[in-house]
Amino acid sequence: MQMAKTIKKKVVLAFSGGLDTTYCAVYLSKNFDVYAIYVNTGGATKNDILKISSHAKNIGVKSFVSVDVVKNYYSQCVRYLIFGNVLKNNTYPLSVSAERVFQAKAVVDYANKINADAISHGSTGAGNDQIRFDMIFRILAPGKKIIAPIRDLKLSRNDEIEFLKSHRVKMDFQKAKYSINKGLWGTSIGGVETLTSNLPLPESAFPNQLKRNDETKVELEFKRGELIKINGKKFSSVNAILFLQNLCNDYAIGRDMHVGDTVIGIKGRVAFEAGAPMVIIKSHHALEKHTLTKWQLYWKDSLSIWYGNFLHDGNFLDPTMRDIEKFFESTQQNVSGKVFVKLLPYRFIIEGIYSEHDLMSPVFGSYGEMNNAWSGEDAKGFSVIASNQTLIYNKINKKKK
Amino acid sequence: MQMAKTIKKKVVLAFSGGLDTTYCAVYLSKNFDVYAIYVNTGGATKNDILKISSHAKNIGVKSFVSVDVVKNYYSQCVRYLIFGNVLKNNTYPLSVSAERVFQAKAVVDYANKINADAISHGSTGAGNDQIRFDMIFRILAPGKKIIAPIRDLKLSRNDEIEFLKSHRVKMDFQKAKYSINKGLWGTSIGGVETLTSNLPLPESAFPNQLKRNDETKVELEFKRGELIKINGKKFSSVNAILFLQNLCNDYAIGRDMHVGDTVIGIKGRVAFEAGAPMVIIKSHHALEKHTLTKWQLYWKDSLSIWYGNFLHDGNFLDPTMRDIEKFFESTQQNVSGKVFVKLLPYRFIIEGIYSEHDLMSPVFGSYGEMNNAWSGEDAKGFSVIASNQTLIYNKINKKKK
Amino acid sequence: MQMAKTIKKKVVLAFSGGLDTTYCAVYLSKNFDVYAIYVNTGGATKNDILKISSHAKNIGVKSFVSVDVVKNYYSQCVRYLIFGNVLKNNTYPLSVSAERVFQAKAVVDYANKINADAISHGSTGAGNDQIRFDMIFRILAPGKKIIAPIRDLKLSRNDEIEFLKSHRVKMDFQKAKYSINKGLWGTSIGGVETLTSNLPLPESAFPNQLKRNDETKVELEFKRGELIKINGKKFSSVNAILFLQNLCNDYAIGRDMHVGDTVIGIKGRVAFEAGAPMVIIKSHHALEKHTLTKWQLYWKDSLSIWYGNFLHDGNFLDPTMRDIEKFFESTQQNVSGKVFVKLLPYRFIIEGIYSEHDLMSPVFGSYGEMNNAWSGEDAKGFSVIASNQTLIYNKINKKKK
Amino acid sequence: MQMAKTIKKKVVLAFSGGLDTTYCAVYLSKNFDVYAIYVNTGGATKNDILKISSHAKNIGVKSFVSVDVVKNYYSQCVRYLIFGNVLKNNTYPLSVSAERVFQAKAVVDYANKINADAISHGSTGAGNDQIRFDMIFRILAPGKKIIAPIRDLKLSRNDEIEFLKSHRVKMDFQKAKYSINKGLWGTSIGGVETLTSNLPLPESAFPNQLKRNDETKVELEFKRGELIKINGKKFSSVNAILFLQNLCNDYAIGRDMHVGDTVIGIKGRVAFEAGAPMVIIKSHHALEKHTLTKWQLYWKDSLSIWYGNFLHDGNFLDPTMRDIEKFFESTQQNVSGKVFVKLLPYRFIIEGIYSEHDLMSPVFGSYGEMNNAWSGEDAKGFSVIASNQTLIYNKINKKKK
Repeated sequence: MQMAKTIKKKVVLAFSGGLDTTYCAVYLSKNFDVYAIYVNTGGATKNDILKISSHAKNIGVKSFVSVDVVKNYYSQCVRYLIFGNVLKNNTYPLSVSAERVFQAKAVVDYANKINADAISHGSTGAGNDQIRFDMIFRILAPGKKIIAPIRDLKLSRNDEIEFLKSHRVKMDFQKAKYSINKGLWGTSIGGVETLTSNLPLPESAFPNQLKRNDETKVELEFKRGELIKINGKKFSSVNAILFLQNLCNDYAIGRDMHVGDTVIGIKGRVAFEAGAPMVIIKSHHALEKHTLTKWQLYWKDSLSIWYGNFLHDGNFLDPTMRDIEKFFESTQQNVSGKVFVKLLPYRFIIEGIYSEHDLMSPVFGSYGEMNNAWSGEDAKGFSVIASNQTLIYNKINKKKK
Repeated sequence: MQMAKTIKKKVVLAFSGGLDTTYCAVYLSKNFDVYAIYVNTGGATKNDILKISSHAKNIGVKSFVSVDVVKNYYSQCVRYLIFGNVLKNNTYPLSVSAERVFQAKAVVDYANKINADAISHGSTGAGNDQIRFDMIFRILAPGKKIIAPIRDLKLSRNDEIEFLKSHRVKMDFQKAKYSINKGLWGTSIGGVETLTSNLPLPESAFPNQLKRNDETKVELEFKRGELIKINGKKFSSVNAILFLQNLCNDYAIGRDMHVGDTVIGIKGRVAFEAGAPMVIIKSHHALEKHTLTKWQLYWKDSLSIWYGNFLHDGNFLDPTMRDIEKFFESTQQNVSGKVFVKLLPYRFIIEGIYSEHDLMSPVFGSYGEMNNAWSGEDAKGFSVIASNQTLIYNKINKKKK
Repeated sequence: MQMAKTIKKKVVLAFSGGLDTTYCAVYLSKNFDVYAIYVNTGGATKNDILKISSHAKNIGVKSFVSVDVVKNYYSQCVRYLIFGNVLKNNTYPLSVSAERVFQAKAVVDYANKINADAISHGSTGAGNDQIRFDMIFRILAPGKKIIAPIRDLKLSRNDEIEFLKSHRVKMDFQKAKYSINKGLWGTSIGGVETLTSNLPLPESAFPNQLKRNDETKVELEFKRGELIKINGKKFSSVNAILFLQNLCNDYAIGRDMHVGDTVIGIKGRVAFEAGAPMVIIKSHHALEKHTLTKWQLYWKDSLSIWYGNFLHDGNFLDPTMRDIEKFFESTQQNVSGKVFVKLLPYRFIIEGIYSEHDLMSPVFGSYGEMNNAWSGEDAKGFSVIASNQTLIYNKINKKKK
Repeated sequence: MQMAKTIKKKVVLAFSGGLDTTYCAVYLSKNFDVYAIYVNTGGATKNDILKISSHAKNIGVKSFVSVDVVKNYYSQCVRYLIFGNVLKNNTYPLSVSAERVFQAKAVVDYANKINADAISHGSTGAGNDQIRFDMIFRILAPGKKIIAPIRDLKLSRNDEIEFLKSHRVKMDFQKAKYSINKGLWGTSIGGVETLTSNLPLPESAFPNQLKRNDETKVELEFKRGELIKINGKKFSSVNAILFLQNLCNDYAIGRDMHVGDTVIGIKGRVAFEAGAPMVIIKSHHALEKHTLTKWQLYWKDSLSIWYGNFLHDGNFLDPTMRDIEKFFESTQQNVSGKVFVKLLPYRFIIEGIYSEHDLMSPVFGSYGEMNNAWSGEDAKGFSVIASNQTLIYNKINKKKK
C-alpha cells in the first residue's frame, strides 16, 4: 500500500503544440494529470505530429495521443458544405470554423472515454474558438469542468512566455509573422494586416507561392454531389480534395480575405487560401445549375446561408442542422456528372459540364429553336395569367389615388 | 378633303433595328401606322442611334423616336441591384433581364402617351423577353393589343429574311457569329457555344479584349450604398459605372458564363462581360461586411436572391418589389466609405476598405487584444446559456434511446 | 376484316357525377370512348360511389371505375401537412387543393395504364382546379391530349343544362344552394356569400350542425408526428382522422372562411369545415413546441408556408417538395407523446401535453427555481456578449451623427 | 453644515412595487441613492401608480417617478406587431416581451438623464427579462453598472421576505396564487399550472370572467394598417385597443396558453388573455388577405416570424429590426378598410371586410363568371409553361433510372 499519494484529477487538453497550449499543459500539470490530444483535420503531416508528440512529452504531459478525424470531418461536415455550396458571406469556405467543431468533438469523445474530470482548451477571450470549444464540450460532456487558462487568467503572450521560461520549457518563442491554420478545407492566415480594415496581405504571406504560368484543364466528376473522380481517376473524397489542392497550390488559386461577424459580436478579418474548396464549390454549383430545378436552387441558397452561419457560430449540434442536411441530401440525387475546369495563375474558369441529368438537354427537340412542346399561344397565355394579380392591383389602386 | 381614306390604327413597336424588329416594322406597316421607339438603357452611342433611326425611316415606319431611360433605369433598378448585391444564382448581374423591364416600361409609356391601339415586340417564343414584354405591356396598358409577330407566326430567321428581301429591305442579313446585348449593367453574349452545356466561349467572342498586363489601383467611394466617387473624383452614378467599365474593359474583367432558369421553365446559358457591375457589387459587399450587422447581412442575402429572381422573371411591377426596396434602402444609411480595389488582367482584388461606420473600429480599445468591454467570464457565460437548449435536447433524447 | 367500324380514341375523364363532368361525359362520347374514373380522397361513402357509377352508366360512358386513393393521399401528402402544421395564410388546411392533386395523379395513372389517347377534366376557366389538373396531366402523361370542355367551350351552367336535356340526360338540374366538396382533410363550401368580401355563411350552410352543448376531453397520441391513438385506442392514421372528425362534427368545430390567391392571380373566398384537421394541426403543433428546438420550429414555419403555397398552386411534383418533405421527416423523430384536448361547441382547447421528449422536463432540477445548470453570472455574460454588436453599432454610428 | 458627508452614488431602479423590486430598493439604499422609476405600458391605472408611489416612499427611496410610455410603445412597437400580424409560434401576441423592451428603454433614458451611476432591475436568473433589461441597459448606457440583486445574490422568495421583515418593511408578503402582468398588448398569467406541461389554467385564474352570453357585432376600421375607428367612432390607436379590450373582456375572448423558447434556452409556458390583440391581428390579417398580393403576404409572414422572435429575445435595438419595419410600413399603404367581427363567448368570428383596395373586386366583370380578362386558352397556356420544368425534370431523370 502506498502512503500519502493523492490521486490527481484527469484533464484532457486540446493540444496543438503552440505557445498557448504549451502554457496550458505546463500550467495544468500542477494540479492535474494532463492528457494531451492532437486532432488532425487534414492539415498535419506525420512529421508534424511527431514533433507535437515529442514536444508534449518534453513538457511533461501524462499522456499524448493524436487522432485523425479527417474522414468523419469530411462525411459529417465538408460533404454538406459542398452540397450547400456554403461560403460564409458569399466568400469564405468556413475552413477553420468547421474544423474546430470536429476537433472539439474528438476532444470531448476522448475525455468521455478516459473518464476525465475536466477538459481544457487554449483559446483566448477575443475569438470564436472559445465559444465553439465551450459549447461542444458542455453539450457532449455536461458534467465536466471546462478550463481555458489563457482566457480565464487574461494572459498576454508575454505572460505566457515568462511563465514557460521560468519553468524551463524549451521552444521557439519567436512569434511567427503570420499565424497559419491548415486543414482539409483550406488554410487561414492572420497577421498585422488582418487587424486592419484596409490592408491586403502581401503575396509572401500566403503559404503557397505561384509556381506555374501555364494553364491546366481538369475534369471533376461528381456523383450525387460528391467528388469521386479527377481526370477520370477514382479517389476517396478526402484524397480528391487533397489532390486538387496540390494542383491549385501551384497556381495560387483560392486566395481571398474575409471580414465577418464573430460569435462574440465583433467583426473579424481573416485571409485564406482555399484552392480546392473554391474550385469544388464552384464546380458543384455549376453542375447543380444544370441539374436542379429553379426552386431547389432557391431553397438550397437560403438554407445554406443559415447552415454556414450556424456552423460558424458553434451550433453544429443543434438538431436543425441534421434536418437541413437531410434536405441537402435529398437535393443531390441527380447532381452527378462532369465539370470541366481550367486552372490559371490566381484564378480558374468553369468551362462547362456534362451530365445525364442535365435539364438543358433538348428533350423537346433542338435547343434554341422554337420549341415543339409549347407554342407562342402558350407563352402568351402564361403572360396573361402571370400578370393578372399585378394588373388587378394596379387597376384597383390607381382608381383610389 | 380626302376621300376613302381609312385611318390606320397605331402600333408602337419596340425597335432595335435588328432582323426581328425590322421584320415587325415592315410586317406591321401593312395594317398599322408604326411608331417605332428605341429605348437606350446605356448600351448605345449617339451614332448607334442615328443608324437605327435612319434604318427605321428607310423601312417606312410612320415615326421613330429614341428615348434614353438610363437615369431611371439606374435610380429605379440598378441602384437596388447594388444595394442587394444581386447576382442571379450567385453569378449573373442580371444585365439583360433588368434592362428589358425598363425598355418595356418606356415603350408602354410612349404607347399610352400617343394613345396607340397596339404594342408590338420582336421576341421569339423561346426566351424570357416575350414574357417580360407581355407582362409589363399588359399591366401598364391593359386595354392595348399586344402583337409579337415573330413568336405568333412562328417565324424562322430564314422566313424573316425572305420576307424582307421580297419587300426590298436593304440590310446586312449575315448572321453575326455572336449576338451581343449591351447595356449600362453589362453585356451579354450568345453564340453556338451557349447552346451547349460544355463549351466555353472563345476569348475572341467577348467584345473587349485584354489590353493591359499591369495592375491599377482604384478607389471607389460609396455614400449610402451608391457609388459617388472614383479615385476621389465625383461622378453621377451612371457616369461612375461607365467610367469604371472602361477601366475594366482594358483588363477583360467581369467575364463569366451563366446557366439559369428561364421564365418558361427551360434552362438557358449565356455568357456575359460585366466588369463594372462585378467590381461595384463586390466592393459594395465588402463595405457592407464592415458596416452592417450580422442579421442585416443575413436578411439582405435572403431578400436579394428573391428580388433578383423576381426581376429576372418580369415581375418587377409586383408591389412586393417596392417593399423589398424599402428594406434595402433602410439598410444603406451607413454604407458609406471607400473601397480599395486592384485591377489585374481578367480579375480584381478587393484590398480593403475605409469607413467612418466600420464596425471593426476599436471602440473598446485596440483590436485583437483581450477586450476591455467583456471578460473571459462573459464569454464563458455566453457559451453556457447559448448551449442550454442543445444540451437539454441531448439529455432528454439520449435517455430515450 | 371489319367494315366501316372506326375505332374510337380513348379518353379518360375525371368524373364526379356533377353537372360539369356529366356534360363532359356526354359531349366526349361523340368522338371518344369515355373511360370515367371517380377518385375517392376520403369524402365519399360506398353509397355515394354506387350512385355515381350508376349515373355514369346511364349516360353511356364506355367504362366506369372508382379508385380509393385515401391511403396514398394520407401517406404522401396529408402526413406532411401535419408535419408542417400547414395552414394556407395561417387559416386554411388546404382541404380541396391537396386532394385535387391526388385525384389528378390517380386519373393520369389510369390513363397511362389503359393507354388512353386523351385525358379530360370538367374544370371551368375561373378557378385553381384547371391548372392543377392540366399541370399534373401534362407532367405525368406528356404525350396525351388534355381536354377541358367546360373551359374550352366557355360554357355557362345553362349551356350545359340545355345540352344535357337535348340529349335526354336525366339528373337533378336544380343548383344546390351551396356547393360542397368533401374529402379526408376537410369540407369546403361555396355559395353566394363566398362571392362577396363581406358576407359570412349562415350556420345552416355548413354540412354539420351543432349537436352537443357539453364538453368532451380527448387524448391524441402522436408517434414521430403521426396520430396513432385516440383516447388510448389504436387507429390507422386515416381512421384516426375520420374518428376525430366525427367527434368534431357534433361540436361544429373547425369552421372558418378563407380568402386567398388563386393560381390564376385573382382572390378567391371559400368557407370550410375542417374539425379534425384543425384539432390535429394545433395538437401536433403544441407537441412540437415542447419537443423541438427554437430553430427547428423557426425553419419548419418558413418551409411550411412555402410547401402549402406550392401544393395549393399545383406544383406538388416539383422535386423541391420532396426535399422539404425530407426536412419535415427529419424534424419528427422526437415528436411523440400525448396531447390533451377539450372539445366544446364551436371551439376546442389544447390543455397540455405529455412527452418523454418534452424539453420542458426538469433536467437540471425543478423547473422555475434558480437553475443549477447556469448562474446569474452566466446570464450576465450572455447579455454582455449578445449585446456586443448592437452596442458597437450604436457607438460607431452615434459618433457620426 | 454637515461634515464628512460622502455623496452616495445614484442608481436608477426599475420599480414595480412587488416583492423583488421592493427588496432591490431596500438593499440598494444602503450604498446608493435609489431613484425608483415605474414605467407604465398601458396596464396600470392612476390608482395603481399612486399605490406604487406611496410604497416606494415608505421604503425610503430617494426619488420615485412614473412615466407613461404607452404612446411610444404603440407607435414604435405594437404598430409593427399589427402590421406583421406577429404571433410568436403562431400563438402568443408577445404581450410581456414587447413591453419589457420599452420599460427598459424608459429606465435607461431616465438613468442617462439624471446621470446615474448604475441601473438596477429585479429580474431573477431563470427568465427572459434579465436578458432584455441587461442588453438594452448595456447598449443604451454602455458605461453604467448593471445591478440585478435577486439574480446576482441567488435569492429565494423567502430570503427576500426575511430581509424585508428584518428591515421593517410593511407589505403583503402573501404570494398571490397567480402572477399577473398587464399591459396594453395583453395580460400574462403564471401559476403552478404553467410550471407543468400538461395542466390547463382554471377559468378563475384569468383576470376577466365571462359576463355575457349574447353576441355583439363590431366594425373595425383600419387606415394604412392602423386601427382608427370602432363602430364608426374615431379613436387614437391606443384608445382603440383599450376600448376593444373592454368589449372582449366581457366575452372572455383571447385566452390561450403559450409554450416557447426563452432566451436562455429552456422552454417556458405562460397563459395569457389578449382579446384586443387577437381580434385586431386577425382582423388586420383578413384585410390584408384582400388587399395585398400573394408575395407580399408571403414575405410578410416570413419576416414577421423573425421580427417576433427577435423582439422576444431582447434584440429590438438591432438595426435589422428597423429595416424590417420599413418593409412592413411599405406593405401597409393600401391596407385600409373595414372588418366586420362578431364577438361571442370565448371566441370571435371575422365575418368579412370592405375595402376600396379589395383585390377581390370585380375589375374584369362579375366575379366567379368566366372572366373577360383571360380565356381558357390563356389558362391552358399558363399550365403548359408552368409545368415545363417539372416535365423536363421527369423526362430527363426517368430515362436514367
